[in-house]
Amino acid sequence: MAFTITILGSGAAIPILNRYPTAQVVQVNNLMILLDCGEGTQMQLRKFIPKPLRISHIFISHLHGDHFYGLIGLVNTFHLLGRTKELHLYGIAPLKFILDYQLEQSGTTLAYPLIFHEIDPEIPQVIMEDKNVTISTIPMNHRVPTCGFLIVEKLQKRRIKKEMLEQLHIPHTEFDHIKNGGSYIDPEGREYPNNLITDDPPAPRSYAYCTDTAYHEPIIPLITGCHLLYHETTFAQEKLEDARAKFHSTAMDAALIAKKAGAKRLMIGHYSARYKDTAALVNEARTIFPETFAAEDGMIVQI
Amino acid sequence: MAFTITILGSGAAIPILNRYPTAQVVQVNNLMILLDCGEGTQMQLRKFIPKPLRISHIFISHLHGDHFYGLIGLVNTFHLLGRTKELHLYGIAPLKFILDYQLEQSGTTLAYPLIFHEIDPEIPQVIMEDKNVTISTIPMNHRVPTCGFLIVEKLQKRRIKKEMLEQLHIPHTEFDHIKNGGSYIDPEGREYPNNLITDDPPAPRSYAYCTDTAYHEPIIPLITGCHLLYHETTFAQEKLEDARAKFHSTAMDAALIAKKAGAKRLMIGHYSARYKDTAALVNEARTIFPETFAAEDGMIVQI
Repeated sequence: MAFTITILGSGAAIPILNRYPTAQVVQVNNLMILLDCGEGTQMQLRKFIPKPLRISHIFISHLHGDHFYGLIGLVNTFHLLGRTKELHLYGIAPLKFILDYQLEQSGTTLAYPLIFHEIDPEIPQVIMEDKNVTISTIPMNHRVPTCGFLIVEKLQKRRIKKEMLEQLHIPHTEFDHIKNGGSYIDPEGREYPNNLITDDPPAPRSYAYCTDTAYHEPIIPLITGCHLLYHETTFAQEKLEDARAKFHSTAMDAALIAKKAGAKRLMIGHYSARYKDTAALVNEARTIFPETFAAEDGMIVQI
Repeated sequence: MAFTITILGSGAAIPILNRYPTAQVVQVNNLMILLDCGEGTQMQLRKFIPKPLRISHIFISHLHGDHFYGLIGLVNTFHLLGRTKELHLYGIAPLKFILDYQLEQSGTTLAYPLIFHEIDPEIPQVIMEDKNVTISTIPMNHRVPTCGFLIVEKLQKRRIKKEMLEQLHIPHTEFDHIKNGGSYIDPEGREYPNNLITDDPPAPRSYAYCTDTAYHEPIIPLITGCHLLYHETTFAQEKLEDARAKFHSTAMDAALIAKKAGAKRLMIGHYSARYKDTAALVNEARTIFPETFAAEDGMIVQI
């Protein structure tokens, strides 16, 4: 099953050339969702994502502009493009008011249902679920109410071993029963226990999206063992005081969280505009967590 | 005196590659102003305008998103860049509320004075004036309250002829009197009438910015003889019905207004996303008004 992240914006509050504010497209099988929607996200979608109308769910971490100023434009463009399919939006209550008021001022009645789901960013909880994934909130520690999002694949069904299929001529009608853990009884009444005829499904993959936040250990139990951690890295360690004052993280902070959470890989991003080049940030993080890499606009990451 | 227009966005509601939504920077001598501020304007400013913090006045024509969704981001970025100089903003009252509410939600208190000037888009009137220019509203005919803007240089003082300066040895102390239209009386009591010793100043230049609007003849007396008319051209004539239904203009409409107003040149823009190439629109307009050219993102026009 495909599980990819496309970085639309890797910058922080001030956009610079080739670095837009935060937005990421996550695709899990046929599900396409958007995490945050900084200004210019619709332009980045046009550049990097074929058929952005397939986005069905948008999650907004908090109401700092670099995470949502592009939302009203995208919502409006979907309308102008003739969207009729519903769009689910997750955020805190004022976000809904900001959209509604601006749509009202422009005399726009959306041609598609925009379904708003109010979230409480302070409580970790499941906010969305479909047949393939579960999405939960991860409370962050920032200057305004903020949460990250944890996207976890559901455990797939057991896989019938190919050689058993051939050897035992298991009929199609038994497949569901066996994939769900049942044993197989052949026409002669012999029972084959499930663990003999099936393999474990692949371990569910997970993506933890953590931005914006100060160094905040309470997130660790929520993201333990994740396959990929995106952790904001607004500053290098030499700007630790700025990071603390502004409730942002350094590269060291991000790496320490990744290490303590036992993440498999760490992607840093949300760089202050002062960092034209991310090499120093990556190198700093790697001193603590070697499996670190830097998000860049347009990058596609396979999980 | 410099009088230039820099096109930041030449597209209409749906941004496409290399065509951002509406925004233009107008520079008259040291004055730098912004007309409209579609999404991504701050990115375009970074690309095309050195020192965008010099912008002192922003004028918003109407509250359709492609004309103001970039405003909140720009206002916020000016704050983050440490602006302290006041910024004047002109628009209808709800614009102020939209900004204030979003700034409040992000916990932002601007570090500079944002001075809001409410405008009535239905009445043509002077809304801003400094020593070099006068800026007035031009009521448009659109689906929501909308006005264009007319930027007119002030008539400069009369120019003392160089040969008269040398021949009559006119003292510096007489310059202001003569430049303001006075005659010169030399030490022997001989009077030299003003028209003998001065030249007319150059005719004041003017830029009429007309977007968004249906074909609307009442604007003609307000923009008569302008040096450059920017007139929205969302459609070609073959889409006349769409234009009428949506209160937009065709290339023919724009050319007809330019012709009837006796404009010196016509710049078309605000193209529907269907037009990747503007040649057909320009050619159509030129059948009526030959001095037509097409706005493109990044273009600088001298008036």
